[in-house]
Amino acid sequence: MSARMTAAPAISIPDLEALIREGVPLVGNFGVSIDELVPGRVRMRMPYKDDFVRPGGTVTGPAMFGLADVALYAAVLSLIGRVELAVTTSMTINFLRRPAPVGIVCEGRVLKLGKRLAYGEVLLFSEDALDEPVAHATGTYSIPPHAPVSVTVSGYRDGGAD
Amino acid sequence: MSARMTAAPAISIPDLEALIREGVPLVGNFGVSIDELVPGRVRMRMPYKDDFVRPGGTVTGPAMFGLADVALYAAVLSLIGRVELAVTTSMTINFLRRPAPVGIVCEGRVLKLGKRLAYGEVLLFSEDALDEPVAHATGTYSIPPHAPVSVTVSGYRDGGAD
Amino acid sequence: MSARMTAAPAISIPDLEALIREGVPLVGNFGVSIDELVPGRVRMRMPYKDDFVRPGGTVTGPAMFGLADVALYAAVLSLIGRVELAVTTSMTINFLRRPAPVGIVCEGRVLKLGKRLAYGEVLLFSEDALDEPVAHATGTYSIPPHAPVSVTVSGYRDGGAD
Amino acid sequence: MSARMTAAPAISIPDLEALIREGVPLVGNFGVSIDELVPGRVRMRMPYKDDFVRPGGTVTGPAMFGLADVALYAAVLSLIGRVELAVTTSMTINFLRRPAPVGIVCEGRVLKLGKRLAYGEVLLFSEDALDEPVAHATGTYSIPPHAPVSVTVSGYRDGGAD
Repeated sequence: MSARMTAAPAISIPDLEALIREGVPLVGNFGVSIDELVPGRVRMRMPYKDDFVRPGGTVTGPAMFGLADVALYAAVLSLIGRVELAVTTSMTINFLRRPAPVGIVCEGRVLKLGKRLAYGEVLLFSEDALDEPVAHATGTYSIPPHAPVSVTVSGYRDGGAD
Repeated sequence: MSARMTAAPAISIPDLEALIREGVPLVGNFGVSIDELVPGRVRMRMPYKDDFVRPGGTVTGPAMFGLADVALYAAVLSLIGRVELAVTTSMTINFLRRPAPVGIVCEGRVLKLGKRLAYGEVLLFSEDALDEPVAHATGTYSIPPHAPVSVTVSGYRDGGAD
Repeated sequence: MSARMTAAPAISIPDLEALIREGVPLVGNFGVSIDELVPGRVRMRMPYKDDFVRPGGTVTGPAMFGLADVALYAAVLSLIGRVELAVTTSMTINFLRRPAPVGIVCEGRVLKLGKRLAYGEVLLFSEDALDEPVAHATGTYSIPPHAPVSVTVSGYRDGGAD
Repeated sequence: MSARMTAAPAISIPDLEALIREGVPLVGNFGVSIDELVPGRVRMRMPYKDDFVRPGGTVTGPAMFGLADVALYAAVLSLIGRVELAVTTSMTINFLRRPAPVGIVCEGRVLKLGKRLAYGEVLLFSEDALDEPVAHATGTYSIPPHAPVSVTVSGYRDGGAD
């Protein structure tokens, strides 16, 4: 991650992990954890669980979607702080390779933070093959009015276009 | 559903429910069931579970994604039979309204069935508000070579464009 | 289109065609026209032009994207009137079959109209093969503040979720 | 672009520009040109034209879609050579900021090259504000059988998942 992103995230890793565990228990129960969090970027991981299997011996799509969704939530909250009511309005996920039945790691980043909408992308990898993504997701979060947004995103200024 | 779609689906409801339960246990454990299945179309439902909650008292996105994903799988298999290795290559889901914390029903249909790719859409509704969708998903399934595909989809002929 | 949608659209066909021609001249110059407009739904057509060709003797994707984009614009404006600054925030288009080098017709409808966002879908057909879509698009329009929104969409009540 | 990507692209810039001009004349007539081409990556530009205007004094979406579409085509052909019949199967574009009425530059890259499908992403910028994207597109190209695919994509091995 960029050397200049030395600012602290607007929410701490323990607070964010607790928010995911309590606020989004379906995905919290997947056992996701945050490896790294800087403003606008996150690296997360999800262990393999037996019920993630699907025909072909691979990780099922909805588990990867869940990880991508909370990774984007984390990347947005790293910028605006604990705004629980930020909600996904749309997500597109492309499954690129069949992952082995092992843990998944992902890197999410915010590409645009506006007053009402945030947009970002997430690359997902098998934890034993970090050089080729198994999936790529993009998504938009809606930010409720009066949430405190006054930040610069990894070189991308708040454009105010939304 | 259209009156002329009187042909039997290429897989029965009990077989498909068993395949989802055993083959995709993460979503199978959501308790999804199939209300109606005709070639190219399906109506499914998913009961509300406590861990589907998310901030705002609504159903979490990944649960709806999981339902949409298996609904599209069901709609595709209603046409080509038990091809377990049909896999999602991409899904786009738009969350349109915050559903109440109740069950979700959905209607999925195949818009294109080719030799290698199938494409369809799914509308999701709260079970207590069937006149306005809470989410809309579109997605593509990849069909492995040598799967038996020789059907007509609800008036949409196999285009052979993929 | 549904018999109950007897209300007049919030903008007339000639006004909307003029707005497209003058406001979005790139697509206006494609020669698009509106066949039918009711609140929340539109049917449009686009004649074939020589520069729409692409390898394989078919209609190029960006032309179909342009038609889908203005069709969604038309469907939204049929509900909220002449709000020129409604802008696309995202579009997903799936190309399902290779269209013949002939005109394209499409049907667009709004699935959700909120205060800030409208979402809808567009099915596109070759004008000589109306039983199988050549493409399917979904998209979101952002509605500027203070635009007059107070309508019912083809059975889908304004959910206020956005 | 990565220092290690020193291999030559599988098609030259002049050949690719000619192919776009002749094969996709709608977008070719936009005046697009290629600044840089290495295997799996491309940088292109599109000058501003009067008919790209749309309400709000900005660049219309279909022009940006057209640029993103050919950029992904170029990135794919940089890997597999002159396979004219590679066709877009889906594209998702998110418009992030209203660009000024000036030229657009973009960077496209392939994230996955399989035997039948290629997937990539394109970031678009106003030529006078290269630090914040105005749009982001992702898309899938279908590669016809018997096209010569035998390459390594910028560290992403051919996964064979499709």
